[in-house]
Amino acid sequence: MTELEIMGAKAKKAASSLAVASTQMKNDALMLIAKTLVEKSDAIIEANSVDLKNAKENGVRPQMIDRLTLTKERIEGIAEGVRQVAQLKDPIGEVIEMVKRPNGLIIGKQRVPLGTIGIIYEARPNVTVDAAVLCLKAGNSAILRGGKEAFHSNNALTIIMRECLKKAGLSEDCIALVQDTTRESATELMQLTKYIDVLIPRGGKGLIRSVVENAKVPVIETGMGNCHLYIESEADFDMALDILFNAKCQRPSVCNAIESLLVDEEIADKFLPLAKAKLDAKNVEWRGCEKTRAIIKDAKEATEEDYYTEYNDYIISVKIVKDIDEAIEHINEHGSGHSEAIVTKNYFKVQKFLREIDAACVYANASTRFTDGFEFGLGAEIGISTQKMHARGPMGLNEITSIKYIIYGEGQIRK
Amino acid sequence: MTELEIMGAKAKKAASSLAVASTQMKNDALMLIAKTLVEKSDAIIEANSVDLKNAKENGVRPQMIDRLTLTKERIEGIAEGVRQVAQLKDPIGEVIEMVKRPNGLIIGKQRVPLGTIGIIYEARPNVTVDAAVLCLKAGNSAILRGGKEAFHSNNALTIIMRECLKKAGLSEDCIALVQDTTRESATELMQLTKYIDVLIPRGGKGLIRSVVENAKVPVIETGMGNCHLYIESEADFDMALDILFNAKCQRPSVCNAIESLLVDEEIADKFLPLAKAKLDAKNVEWRGCEKTRAIIKDAKEATEEDYYTEYNDYIISVKIVKDIDEAIEHINEHGSGHSEAIVTKNYFKVQKFLREIDAACVYANASTRFTDGFEFGLGAEIGISTQKMHARGPMGLNEITSIKYIIYGEGQIRK
Repeated sequence: MTELEIMGAKAKKAASSLAVASTQMKNDALMLIAKTLVEKSDAIIEANSVDLKNAKENGVRPQMIDRLTLTKERIEGIAEGVRQVAQLKDPIGEVIEMVKRPNGLIIGKQRVPLGTIGIIYEARPNVTVDAAVLCLKAGNSAILRGGKEAFHSNNALTIIMRECLKKAGLSEDCIALVQDTTRESATELMQLTKYIDVLIPRGGKGLIRSVVENAKVPVIETGMGNCHLYIESEADFDMALDILFNAKCQRPSVCNAIESLLVDEEIADKFLPLAKAKLDAKNVEWRGCEKTRAIIKDAKEATEEDYYTEYNDYIISVKIVKDIDEAIEHINEHGSGHSEAIVTKNYFKVQKFLREIDAACVYANASTRFTDGFEFGLGAEIGISTQKMHARGPMGLNEITSIKYIIYGEGQIRK
Repeated sequence: MTELEIMGAKAKKAASSLAVASTQMKNDALMLIAKTLVEKSDAIIEANSVDLKNAKENGVRPQMIDRLTLTKERIEGIAEGVRQVAQLKDPIGEVIEMVKRPNGLIIGKQRVPLGTIGIIYEARPNVTVDAAVLCLKAGNSAILRGGKEAFHSNNALTIIMRECLKKAGLSEDCIALVQDTTRESATELMQLTKYIDVLIPRGGKGLIRSVVENAKVPVIETGMGNCHLYIESEADFDMALDILFNAKCQRPSVCNAIESLLVDEEIADKFLPLAKAKLDAKNVEWRGCEKTRAIIKDAKEATEEDYYTEYNDYIISVKIVKDIDEAIEHINEHGSGHSEAIVTKNYFKVQKFLREIDAACVYANASTRFTDGFEFGLGAEIGISTQKMHARGPMGLNEITSIKYIIYGEGQIRK
């Protein structure tokens, strides 16, 4: 057996006892993890400094260095996240539906863990703890495979979590970090169908594409967001401008920020100059269709490829459409099925947009930036699914569970 | 583009309009299909006779020939199934949950179709209609890939369904039959990630294993059932014997029949001879552990492989266990996660078994033969999932849908 197979077998074994652990035991382990992370922050920061030193030597960009950096405050923030997960309702064991059949059988649909979840992620060491504790609360083992840039930090965090699990009477193998950070270990993890039930990639486009293309283990695809805002002819302009600015500029690097603006041709010559002025505050670069460029002179030309692109930056593609049908068709063709929004006062256009857009989250008169587990009230988020199978949209604890049917009989046999 | 890619692209396009078709339109199409199948039964039977002639020439087993055969009565049965699907509640559009967030956003979780579903199946031509109409009712396009033995029958049925779709104002491409029945077409279908959202294999072990191993399209694994019945020390013997006979002998060829009997050592010497006498009525072959063979002299030896085997026949593997813990451990190791049952009067043993067994359906004091969409009250069944992702256990209409979040705002932006 390879090192990873051994890890997988241990995780699977740990998962079967974790599946029946009491809520109290899981919460005790979580609270101990939170406490110990804070107590041991000096050791964590020391491990982190090794990663930071390597990163600087390797000429990593300052923005990435910032993401990688752990401080006392950030560790306290991570610990607070763990405490919040402890507060969340335990999804496991809940009977979602229960029916009595004509033959007297009582059939219940009960929430159970998925089993072992593999998480493949990039630089941020906080994901190590966030993902592991969400898996734990939902009764799943977690096999974490972080990026090599954060290995020392991830390892320090994992060692602490494993010690806490043991002290709390759970198997330390409920949480494990893949020690080999080469590409080969990621590939092997993606093929480990015998031990891993589902793989959740968290990171940039390249990572996610690689996982979706190479995995044999079932994947929940997350995060890609080519989101649109459609300003319909009967939009309230003030509301439209506020939503546009918020959705594009509040945090352009994230998946629920918009990349593309569609404007109804009836209002384009009035709305676009206002939109341009609004986005100029952040020097947003415009790439527009021919009609857009006739109105906004310094917009660059948008290619067909632009309309498929998630910039994650202060760049926006703009297109004038002749009506809501063209807007819906354009979005369903070019969008990534993440978050799409319409701004309009027209009731019927709202209903049509909500019905016909094929995306995880479809908004009327609100910013796409709300697509988030916390904002949706799930209490937590392990990622945002852009696929249709198993889970779609922000994933909280319920989304990393499965069900089983429990059937209470009194001697029934089938006729 | 290959023939299959063209079919996929058409199915995908058809799916996007089917997703927003009204319940009335879908039901009208279903009722028309039912009516036309009966009206054209002579033509269907003629096409079927070509398959039957080929099958007989190829020396196909009588049991398979029976499965392949269509008669007026069987076509009426298929049509009746279609009418029943028309009666089922349309799952699409249902808002499962709706919450109001503190910021006033109203967020609803709405059922939507999965998109395009590929079904790979074997000889029975009724699956062509059953699967297609379930997909249709849940707003999904269906790409059907049946076995070559039933091609002429499947094709005749598909042509009729497509004509009816057109007459009912829906796209005929909502239902398509892969015309090439070579192994290559199945493999290509499994890789068609661009057009197919999920693949459901229906058939024997070989087919399902091949799909699970080769598919790039997400798969819902169905049907493999290595099911167990555990007779606990406090079992009511009469009830235990009735359930044993029903679960093993009522229809041994199906996935929810049991393959293995576990008996508590405390009662083994009393229970096993009774069980043997009961199963002798159907000449069931016994393969037992050493302790079993000490009691039942003409039981053959059970190998470790026997305990992993789904016989689908009048054969049973038998093992004496020392307690419920050994029973649970044995089942979780050897079972296929389909249906497992305990017989006991002991309340706490029931609760423990229901909690600790990791399977789609876990029974107390009832036959495993109830694992079925109709028996569970789902109104229909497109298969029984033995995986944990997306759906587990019998799958009805709800299980071939996804969700989207619809968000009603009044100008909210994220702080």
